[in-house]
Formats: sequence, C-alpha cells, structure tokens
Amino acid sequence: MTDEEYMRLALELARRGEGWTSPNPMVGAVIVRDGKVLGKGYHRRFGEAHAEINAINDASGPVEGAAFYVTLEPCSHHGKTPPCVDRIIKAKASRVVVGSIDPNPLVSGRGISILNDHGIETRVGVLERDCEALNEKFFTFMRTGMPFVTLKYAQTLDGRIASFTGHSRWISSELSLKFAHRLRGQHDAVLVGIGTVAADDPDLRVRLVRGRNPLRIIVDSSLRIPSDARVLDNQDTARTLVVTGPLRESGKSSVIEERGIETLAVERNTDGSLDLKMLLTELGKRQISSVLVEGGAGVITSLVRAGLFDRMIVINAPKILGSGIEAVGDLGISRIDDSIAFRYERIFRKGEDVVMYMRKGEG
Amino acid sequence: MTDEEYMRLALELARRGEGWTSPNPMVGAVIVRDGKVLGKGYHRRFGEAHAEINAINDASGPVEGAAFYVTLEPCSHHGKTPPCVDRIIKAKASRVVVGSIDPNPLVSGRGISILNDHGIETRVGVLERDCEALNEKFFTFMRTGMPFVTLKYAQTLDGRIASFTGHSRWISSELSLKFAHRLRGQHDAVLVGIGTVAADDPDLRVRLVRGRNPLRIIVDSSLRIPSDARVLDNQDTARTLVVTGPLRESGKSSVIEERGIETLAVERNTDGSLDLKMLLTELGKRQISSVLVEGGAGVITSLVRAGLFDRMIVINAPKILGSGIEAVGDLGISRIDDSIAFRYERIFRKGEDVVMYMRKGEG
Repeated sequence: MTDEEYMRLALELARRGEGWTSPNPMVGAVIVRDGKVLGKGYHRRFGEAHAEINAINDASGPVEGAAFYVTLEPCSHHGKTPPCVDRIIKAKASRVVVGSIDPNPLVSGRGISILNDHGIETRVGVLERDCEALNEKFFTFMRTGMPFVTLKYAQTLDGRIASFTGHSRWISSELSLKFAHRLRGQHDAVLVGIGTVAADDPDLRVRLVRGRNPLRIIVDSSLRIPSDARVLDNQDTARTLVVTGPLRESGKSSVIEERGIETLAVERNTDGSLDLKMLLTELGKRQISSVLVEGGAGVITSLVRAGLFDRMIVINAPKILGSGIEAVGDLGISRIDDSIAFRYERIFRKGEDVVMYMRKGEG
Repeated sequence: MTDEEYMRLALELARRGEGWTSPNPMVGAVIVRDGKVLGKGYHRRFGEAHAEINAINDASGPVEGAAFYVTLEPCSHHGKTPPCVDRIIKAKASRVVVGSIDPNPLVSGRGISILNDHGIETRVGVLERDCEALNEKFFTFMRTGMPFVTLKYAQTLDGRIASFTGHSRWISSELSLKFAHRLRGQHDAVLVGIGTVAADDPDLRVRLVRGRNPLRIIVDSSLRIPSDARVLDNQDTARTLVVTGPLRESGKSSVIEERGIETLAVERNTDGSLDLKMLLTELGKRQISSVLVEGGAGVITSLVRAGLFDRMIVINAPKILGSGIEAVGDLGISRIDDSIAFRYERIFRKGEDVVMYMRKGEG
C-alpha cells in the first residue's frame, strides 16, 4: 500500500473521535512495518491518550523500525499527556508520515524538527487537504483565536423559519431533528438569542443521538431570561452561559449567578446590539473552538450581516407557508448583485428534507 | 437479452424525440429476431412517421417473424399517418411487447386486441412505470383533458424572486438560464402574468438552446399589455395568446387582434381574479398538453392556492436578499401543519444553483 492509502486509514480512525476530542483535534495513527499494519489508534476523547500512543499500545509487540502514519503532526509539548514525539523516538520509529502540520504557530513544525534531529525520516503533507478538512474547526480556531461558527436553521421552501404568529414546530422532519442534535454534539457550544428561548423554550442538549452536550449560550442583552427556562436546568450535564450587555445596566445577573449559571457581559454596538465579535473573541479565550448558532432571526441576521460565520447549514423543508418570519431579516438590498453570496458546499436529503451546506461565496 | 433490456433500448430511443412530438407522445421501437436487433426507430416530430414505421424502415430487410418492442401501444386509428397496427400485421411480426397502454380511453387496448385477432402474441406492461413516466405530460393531459402544469421559478435561498424594488436580473446563474430555456422547449406553452411582462419584458422563446418555441400565454385580465412588448413580436416563430377577462369589459382586444394575436376571454372568480381552471380547460381543448408557468408571484400564488399544478421546479440560487418579493404570497397560514406540503422528487446542481423538482405532498 502507498503512503496515501495508509493515511486514508488513519483518517478513518481519526473520525471516530468526532464530537469528543475538542478542544483537541481529531487524530488517527497507523503503525506499519514491512507492509503489515502493526497498530492502529485514534484520539478518543479530550484528556485521554493521543492517537500515536493508542497505536503503539495496540501493537502486540515492539514497533522498532516501523513507519508511523499520523493525520496531524505529533505534539512536542507537555499538555494533559507527555509529548508524543518522545514516545515515537523511544519506540525507534524509522519514518513518520504526517498529514497536516500543527496549526498552532507556537509549536507548528517543531514535532517534525525534533524527529529529524533524532534521525527519523519524515514526510509531510500526505492527504494534507483531507487532514486539514477533518479538523477544520480546530484549524480555524487556532488561526483566528475565534471559534468556528456554524449558522444552522430549518426553513420552509419559501424561506420561513416560523409562521407570522411565531409558530415553528416542526418545520423539519424527525430525521432532520436528529441530524440537528448530531450537529450539537459536533460543536463546543450552541448559541441562541433570547427570542428563541422565549418562543420555543429549548433545552439545547444532545438528546436524540449520542453525543457530548455543548455549552449552552444565550444571547440576552437585557437579561430577561425567565428563571424557569429549560436551558437553565440540568447544569450538571450541560453548562449554560448567559451573554448580557454591560453589567452596569442591570443588577439582575446575580439572580442567575446564584443558581451557578455564568454570565458574560459584552459591549454594545452603536446601534444597541451586542458586540458579537467581542463575544466570539471571549469564547475563543475560553477554549470554545466551535459554535453552532441555532437562531433566531435576530442573531443570525447580525452574524450574516457582519460576516461572522464560517459555514451555514440550511435545512429546507418541502413546505410553503406564504408568509412568516425569515432567518435573515431586511438588509436593505435592492439589487440582486448586492445580495449576500454563498456557494453550495454539500447537498443531501435527510428524511423529507434537503440539507444544504453553504460557504461564503464570491460577492 | 430480456424483454426488459430491449424495452430499455426502446425507451432511450423514444427520449430523442423530447420536445418535438407534442401533442403526440414520445415513442421508441426496436425490432428483434433471433437475438439480433433488425431495426430501431422513434417518433421524431409531430406529423412525421411513428416509431414502429421508422424501425421497420430502419431494418435492411423484411422483419417477418420478428418481435416488436414498443414503449406505447401501437395506434389503431388514422391520424396524420395510417395506423401502425396495420403495418405491424403486414410486416408479419410474431410478437409485440408493449410498455404502456394508450391512455386515450377511446382507443386504449384496441391496438393490442387487433394484433391478437391477427394471431400476433402480445405482452403488455414491460417497464410500464418508466414508459408512463416518459410521457407523463401526455398521460396527464389524456386523463384530465387539462395540460400538465409545471410551475417554475428561480429564487434566492431566502425565497425571493426579486428584490423589494422588483429587481430580479439575474437571480440564477447562466447555466440555470439555459436549463430554463430547455424547459420551455419541453412544454407546449409557457405562461406568465402581465406583471412579469411589465417588469421584465421577456421574449419567452427558446433561444439559449435548440428547441421548439412554445405558445406564449400572457394572463392579462384587464388587457393592459403594451403594444411594444417583446412577447408580441416574432409571431412567425412563436405564437402568442393573450388571456383576458370577459370581453364585454373592454374593446381593447381588437388592437391586439389586428396584429394577428389571438385573445382568449375567461370568466372571473368572485374575488375578481381570472378563472384559471377554465383557462386550463380551454387550453386542453386546443391540444395544449403542457404549460410551463414562469411567474410572476400573482399567477404562481393563484395556481398553488388552487392546487392547479402537477410539478414545481424551484431553482435555488446561493444568495440571500433579506427582503423582497416571494413567489408565493400570503396564504393566511399561521400553523406549520397547515402549510402547503410538497415532496422532493429530484434535486441536482446546475452551475452555482440547486434545482429542486417537487410534487404535491401529504398535507
């Protein structure tokens, strides 16, 4: 088998950790000697062993002289676990093949250098694009310091996320709801505006599928969240962060905080809305590497208008309402050429619905 | 090869006539003897020879004792050409395999009977579903007496067919425009409301691809079409029909008629709108077996509300306008369960856009 084929195997292993490794990336590793796979491993969960170590432990005997295939550059620093390069050197690997270089500018390329210094041959960039795509959220977070932002909403064919009375249950089909829960498990945080809490009283945890609960973020500039909101319950299984305007505006936060719920005050823009860029920067500092924005229209419109998103996932239900509330409100655009441009990244059917993955497009 | 495989071949042949045979159906025929294809044919164009005859002529010698594979029951009546069953009998076929039975209740099954009466073995219903789907417009027309109605529009991701100023050029990409012209060539008529003529001054002919020009129908209840509208030009290559309210309302039609443009008066509903069901029935009487409705919002909303359509084709452009004109206007629906339901039939990408074929769904 070629380097690319072994790397493909390592990629498949890495994906098994999806939803459990953050803020670490997903990583897969395969150890090969004389055309024989000696060990396979992946990073299963944040805080546990890295992929390389799991692969070494998976091998039934010593791996001296073997080649290591790793989707991401092996770490060279002490984190929750000792550096992987030390273990690879100790294992007397002959060669290390790497998919993508660590995007952290402080350590990027250092693992490779150390291996080379110890006489281990390296090859870098095998299936690099796939290896980077695998950890796109992590790479974006490392590069920008802000979380990777996914906007997600279900709409009717005519672009409504609710009827004119605010009724929205359920626009999408049951399979799409499961899919939405899976998305939650793939992000460090889920974010909604206070309007969505008032209208739908969502729980925001991962319930319909297996997955890690994200941090539940409520953007609530005037701190009007009702104390019996479901999103404030179950703090033992999913934490909640209530984002408010400057604290000097209100003394109410202490009531929330008494219940052990954290608040975060951010500045207001000149138009009175909250500074969402500041919010994202704050979330980045807290090691939130990805945020799934589930609405409502106010938050989505603000983020779209400011370009503060990386991906948009629209679930299109085969229904027409004729009138109602749109995900993105008025932007004052009168000419088609001035519309906000996207490009379709992926399109697939989910139950009765169609799911569209979109990226920012050419303006 | 099996009967099904020869029928598949006949189906492929039949499709070559797409856009040229109406109001006749598309038909393909294959003549086989001792596992050898002797002749192939399809109905190329309305008024020309039928598929069976073309297949007989395609054979280099006599086809005595051969089996005929025909996607549609051979005709038994004199139309523009003599009956095909006579030619098949004269050719001394041993066996005739038929995809779908003629949907015309007056002759349905008669071709088969005549063949049986002459000692020719028949098998009916091979790939029947595919053979009926091939001529779905024709079958609908034969069954209901009204044309098969396709609603088609291009919209932004947020369901706008124009900005709030009415600007709509171009929502979809160039490839989608070509696709839209191809759709015109596949329908007997294209229909728009007078608002679309006023806003866009469309030509409505097939220009960007090769194809037969449809009849151009303008729904113009008060006969306010400007005499320099492009849709009134080029009557030598594409006829136009202007649909008005009851003629007693106005003496204006004579101006249009003097230019050789036909008008058709239909009654008004109690709400003042034109009776579109009456219009479709009238079109059926004129042998218009299919209509492509290209807008605008008024006509589409009326047809959707009345359920007067068979298929909807929505071209979704990856753009967000935030505000603007919707294809389907207010329907007074406040609950999601009451929305108009569709189901996705086919979804594919076309240039930058996504094309969605939709059918009426479960309510």
